[in-house]
Amino acid sequence: MAPKKGILERLDAGEVVLGDGGFVFALEKRGYVKAGPWTPEAAAEYPEAVRQLHREFLRAGSNVMQTFTFYASDDKLENRGNTQRFTGEQINEAACDLARGVADEGDALVAGGVSQTPSYLSCKSEEDVKAIFKKQIDVFVRKNVDFLIAEYFEHVEEAEWAVQVLKTSGKPVAATMCIGPEGDLNGVSPGECAVKLVKAGANIVGVNCHFDPETCVKTVKLMKEGVEKAGLKAHYMSQPLGFHTPDCNRQGFIDLPEFPFALEPRILTRWDMQKYAREAYNAGIRYIGGCCGFEPYHIRAVSEELEAERGFLPAGSEKHGKWGTGLELHTKPWVRARARREYWEKLQPASGRPFCPSMSKPDSWGVTKGHADLMQQKEATSKEQLKVLFDKATQNA
Amino acid sequence: MAPKKGILERLDAGEVVLGDGGFVFALEKRGYVKAGPWTPEAAAEYPEAVRQLHREFLRAGSNVMQTFTFYASDDKLENRGNTQRFTGEQINEAACDLARGVADEGDALVAGGVSQTPSYLSCKSEEDVKAIFKKQIDVFVRKNVDFLIAEYFEHVEEAEWAVQVLKTSGKPVAATMCIGPEGDLNGVSPGECAVKLVKAGANIVGVNCHFDPETCVKTVKLMKEGVEKAGLKAHYMSQPLGFHTPDCNRQGFIDLPEFPFALEPRILTRWDMQKYAREAYNAGIRYIGGCCGFEPYHIRAVSEELEAERGFLPAGSEKHGKWGTGLELHTKPWVRARARREYWEKLQPASGRPFCPSMSKPDSWGVTKGHADLMQQKEATSKEQLKVLFDKATQNA
Amino acid sequence: MAPKKGILERLDAGEVVLGDGGFVFALEKRGYVKAGPWTPEAAAEYPEAVRQLHREFLRAGSNVMQTFTFYASDDKLENRGNTQRFTGEQINEAACDLARGVADEGDALVAGGVSQTPSYLSCKSEEDVKAIFKKQIDVFVRKNVDFLIAEYFEHVEEAEWAVQVLKTSGKPVAATMCIGPEGDLNGVSPGECAVKLVKAGANIVGVNCHFDPETCVKTVKLMKEGVEKAGLKAHYMSQPLGFHTPDCNRQGFIDLPEFPFALEPRILTRWDMQKYAREAYNAGIRYIGGCCGFEPYHIRAVSEELEAERGFLPAGSEKHGKWGTGLELHTKPWVRARARREYWEKLQPASGRPFCPSMSKPDSWGVTKGHADLMQQKEATSKEQLKVLFDKATQNA
Amino acid sequence: MAPKKGILERLDAGEVVLGDGGFVFALEKRGYVKAGPWTPEAAAEYPEAVRQLHREFLRAGSNVMQTFTFYASDDKLENRGNTQRFTGEQINEAACDLARGVADEGDALVAGGVSQTPSYLSCKSEEDVKAIFKKQIDVFVRKNVDFLIAEYFEHVEEAEWAVQVLKTSGKPVAATMCIGPEGDLNGVSPGECAVKLVKAGANIVGVNCHFDPETCVKTVKLMKEGVEKAGLKAHYMSQPLGFHTPDCNRQGFIDLPEFPFALEPRILTRWDMQKYAREAYNAGIRYIGGCCGFEPYHIRAVSEELEAERGFLPAGSEKHGKWGTGLELHTKPWVRARARREYWEKLQPASGRPFCPSMSKPDSWGVTKGHADLMQQKEATSKEQLKVLFDKATQNA
Repeated sequence: MAPKKGILERLDAGEVVLGDGGFVFALEKRGYVKAGPWTPEAAAEYPEAVRQLHREFLRAGSNVMQTFTFYASDDKLENRGNTQRFTGEQINEAACDLARGVADEGDALVAGGVSQTPSYLSCKSEEDVKAIFKKQIDVFVRKNVDFLIAEYFEHVEEAEWAVQVLKTSGKPVAATMCIGPEGDLNGVSPGECAVKLVKAGANIVGVNCHFDPETCVKTVKLMKEGVEKAGLKAHYMSQPLGFHTPDCNRQGFIDLPEFPFALEPRILTRWDMQKYAREAYNAGIRYIGGCCGFEPYHIRAVSEELEAERGFLPAGSEKHGKWGTGLELHTKPWVRARARREYWEKLQPASGRPFCPSMSKPDSWGVTKGHADLMQQKEATSKEQLKVLFDKATQNA
Repeated sequence: MAPKKGILERLDAGEVVLGDGGFVFALEKRGYVKAGPWTPEAAAEYPEAVRQLHREFLRAGSNVMQTFTFYASDDKLENRGNTQRFTGEQINEAACDLARGVADEGDALVAGGVSQTPSYLSCKSEEDVKAIFKKQIDVFVRKNVDFLIAEYFEHVEEAEWAVQVLKTSGKPVAATMCIGPEGDLNGVSPGECAVKLVKAGANIVGVNCHFDPETCVKTVKLMKEGVEKAGLKAHYMSQPLGFHTPDCNRQGFIDLPEFPFALEPRILTRWDMQKYAREAYNAGIRYIGGCCGFEPYHIRAVSEELEAERGFLPAGSEKHGKWGTGLELHTKPWVRARARREYWEKLQPASGRPFCPSMSKPDSWGVTKGHADLMQQKEATSKEQLKVLFDKATQNA
Repeated sequence: MAPKKGILERLDAGEVVLGDGGFVFALEKRGYVKAGPWTPEAAAEYPEAVRQLHREFLRAGSNVMQTFTFYASDDKLENRGNTQRFTGEQINEAACDLARGVADEGDALVAGGVSQTPSYLSCKSEEDVKAIFKKQIDVFVRKNVDFLIAEYFEHVEEAEWAVQVLKTSGKPVAATMCIGPEGDLNGVSPGECAVKLVKAGANIVGVNCHFDPETCVKTVKLMKEGVEKAGLKAHYMSQPLGFHTPDCNRQGFIDLPEFPFALEPRILTRWDMQKYAREAYNAGIRYIGGCCGFEPYHIRAVSEELEAERGFLPAGSEKHGKWGTGLELHTKPWVRARARREYWEKLQPASGRPFCPSMSKPDSWGVTKGHADLMQQKEATSKEQLKVLFDKATQNA
Repeated sequence: MAPKKGILERLDAGEVVLGDGGFVFALEKRGYVKAGPWTPEAAAEYPEAVRQLHREFLRAGSNVMQTFTFYASDDKLENRGNTQRFTGEQINEAACDLARGVADEGDALVAGGVSQTPSYLSCKSEEDVKAIFKKQIDVFVRKNVDFLIAEYFEHVEEAEWAVQVLKTSGKPVAATMCIGPEGDLNGVSPGECAVKLVKAGANIVGVNCHFDPETCVKTVKLMKEGVEKAGLKAHYMSQPLGFHTPDCNRQGFIDLPEFPFALEPRILTRWDMQKYAREAYNAGIRYIGGCCGFEPYHIRAVSEELEAERGFLPAGSEKHGKWGTGLELHTKPWVRARARREYWEKLQPASGRPFCPSMSKPDSWGVTKGHADLMQQKEATSKEQLKVLFDKATQNA
């Protein structure tokens, strides 16, 4: 078998690359991840469950299998207080093996992923934080993943450090922050963030998590403008939430009162996803995937929207009539009448929840009694203040 | 290993038995079932995907693994126009093997399931319709399932025929109709339906699919009243939708304009599910499960609500802090403040969809142009009229 | 000038008679009625304000000027604790003069109105309660109103007493209860209520207040069925709220948490009113008016909907293009495009309130701390229990 | 009687001055103004109706009686195609007399008002446009109003011209534009607009109409910042809509699909108004009134919120218990429990419209068939383009 084309070969050739969806949320619903810690020990504990999810995304059209290593840095695993049956190294290794096994069942690449660390939040030194990333990357290099992703960073400084470490591997590097149009938690704008990441060595930049597709596409556009204005070059990537979040503040969906156990009414339909795919494509984004809330059928919808651009449908479309045409066989004529694009495109789906509002007000410090002293610091997230915050939060837990 | 207690032993002893969730919807989202036909050929085609879903429900607390044989009668499989790679018999057999395999990994029973047939809808004779059921049951008997379920019947007459055939197996029989408080499509009330089913030999009666938990519990209450008024005895069962459907007409969620591809905003949260479990229990229902829209975490929520009554938590709760206590470790204090029952119980989750309404008007014949002649017949569903309807619908397809 | 045709002449001839709208709510917003007491002393205090409102309804098409005598019985006026500058008699007289003055500016009749009394609620004898009504009626007779209305009764027994007293005047009598399809507060069904009222001597029966137009039309239909089934004859009347209240319990909008100061989002549009007029007409109701929430433009909308049936438009339509045609002169083409019936008929107006739900849960005893003892009595409204309730409520006030 | 303090004396002394509400909308509902033309001929035709509305606002606490002269310029009156029974001069004179008569019943001033003209929109010369304003002002001077208001301008250039003409009267001048935070239709920011108006001679600047209170307060804040940054001085004024409009584009509520006949669900409650009064006050706005959608009880709510600052309650509060205390006498304890501030402040009122969304998408050119050629010009509103637009629109009418 000829070797697969690498991520940069694909993007340089103008191909659309589809990412996968968020594993922690999907596996939480399946019973293998604990909300709160959100750690990926299931890679070692329940490999068949993780493998199955990989397969579903592959079948839906994903070109990338991300290793299930979110929050799998040693400091995070310890911090979350779990007495693990597995070491961080074992988890990272198992995740690589699972991703590789499924990737080789199709035309997919394996991407090793790192994410923000408690070490940074508690103001450890650059050296210390980089050492944390290094440990995970050693596994990725040993397991020979195809490229690396630094994702879910709220502070561009930490993301730059991550990129610098990832670059030492010699592999292509993607970097996505979990920010919206207002920028990172220190107020660095999306454009500036992107420039810093490209300068740090990232080949692909963008955003993931925290905001809905519409907001993420808007943010990546700002990144692209920044990069182009600086006379730099990059590929662009978006992996948004599978939830509608028009009501977020700049800290994203974490602050919504529904997070994380009552987000159901916000889940995107497959048609919302097709709209996302089109908007992302139109914005010049060529690495299009998803994060928390994305299920396999969401990625399939992205595949179906971009059928013409990609030149094919995914394997999973054998079980899906594009634009609902599977309903043509329904016995009720008024259900058959739904088997068409125009119907689903213009439908405004009801919530079935007449006692619920359509938007929420994000929580803030004030909501939590006993944190009046921290309230004023809400907007102040310099590194020193973050440390105070973190220490207090940990004590009170 | 001691033999497992049978379904009637459990119910007679006052135990709560938890069902599983709807496989066709869950597997459609995972990429293995086609919406429209909704047939279960994946049991033979993609056994590992089906097995994984069984395992997740087992882990969530299900005591019953239903064979993935919905719409697996020969007439349905043919009618849906699929050129199957597998015969109906192969599909039914594969489904039995998968259910048995997973059931034996824990304390679960296997239930073989049959559902309403196109043969009845097209006015085949009682003999013909019963022959259809007989073919599936022969497999169930050969594979030695623990009990049988006749589910998803819109007409009580067909359900009675099914029960009569199922009874010939000598195994316990459950029968659930997909009706609401207004009764079956011929206007037979829930109480009457239940009496007929018990008289036909059903040990357990109730409802499944088509309506939300609140409506289903209400309907089963009416069934229970009917049975008790008639001086009969039965066990009660509910397997509702995992969607909020306050706006249904008596044909259930099929007629909602969002069916089946835009139901996301209606998905129940885990807290809605705990409420359902409590209400079902309070209504005297002891076989509590789910249908379309139920994911494994929904059944886990039922398990957690009924922890005291059942005396234990399911295996899957190792990855779930009851009432959200997993959030106690979150770094943000206002997120930690959500780690409590009162918070989730009173939360009214927003839809994130400010341009969408909270309720829809069910579709009707009139919506579909060219069916004005059938419009008047909407409420007329005698067998003869059904035949006319079915023929027209089939011609137009 | 030829004498005007009486109310029964009109109805017997098949004419549509339009009522007016609710004075207490309209005048509360204008600053002349106090919410809580809701008493009509403004008839004597601020006659020009009351006269102006009468004129606006006349101009909108009302055929009846109801005397502004709601809650103007002596026991109510005293009970509400106002140290009135005017006696009950003075208020009732002033109200008659105002209604007559404006009625004679056009083709309108004057109707003297009585409503339920605190005397009944506190279990005074039939004799005492009737004496209360008698005092108001003496004024109406002296002022020679054209007919009488007994309105806003929650208990049919009290309404019957009122009708019996009104009949002694020799004038035509209408009787409307503030009930919904579930019947009066003692559970007497709408059909039974109507029969009792007709037997007591009412020429016109129906409902007013407490529920939205849809619910009121439904209730009057039930009344009509009851009367016809009993082989009796009557004319029918509805004067609903100008608020959407799909979420009421049987006590009506009083129990909605928004009552009375946050009902704005529920106000009917003129198009909703046209729909109401059509539905009322189709249900055989020929006395069509409104109650709380109705403004003059709402009655004008009823007039415009029934232009063909009545044969003319009201004077006020000189300032209103039917179906919005006044917009044809607008400078913006997309606003001009709204000058047509189809546009307004199908528009689903947004609330502009994304943090608000679409329905509320009615309050109940339990909501009010300190009334736990009364909670159980909520549904028990026999006369004895009502007395207990009333006494406690009064003490606690 | 001592002469009343002038508008500038009051504002210079730090007093809060309350405006009135929008006459065209209030009188449209009462039957005296035609939606579409929106012209104020009722001042001459139905003086008692206009006088009554003035009185209600006076009673509610208004310190200013604005002459009912909106759109009463000769070019507008002609343009709207009405064959008036009265000349523009007669209308303007009658309006002055009505305002003066009621103002002298209390402590209120009379303000003569002019608004934007079709002459400007059709690109007449500065001289021509100013002549139009001059005609109205001649009446105001002759009738000796206390001060002048130039209101409802979408283009700052025309507003400047108006101010320049008004200044020739020697009377104090207020100028309000109907813009939001995005500025006027040529893109001039609120801050720049305010500076231009102050430089043109306005003593008081601010906004009126087109947007909800929240948006208007935000816009006036931007104006104040602009004026202060420019080293200038002014008083500030806001007269917003009485409708919630979070979903407007920069052209305001005209473009909302509900305008003008289905805005009911957006009407502010009295509690929303108290919030507005507080926010306006906190923003340094001292001339606080309302525009379309404001009813007398809305101004009363503003008066009640600012009782402490103003030192008194309005006459109308004799019929209103602050924060709902009038309910203390209600017979139902759970209604009495609503007689408190906390209850109303936190209530999120339901719409009673479960089939309606909470927000709308503003209309645009594209909506109107046959205007595809104008669509691209939507954002292009230079004077030349406006002329094209206006001519086309007029032809098509």
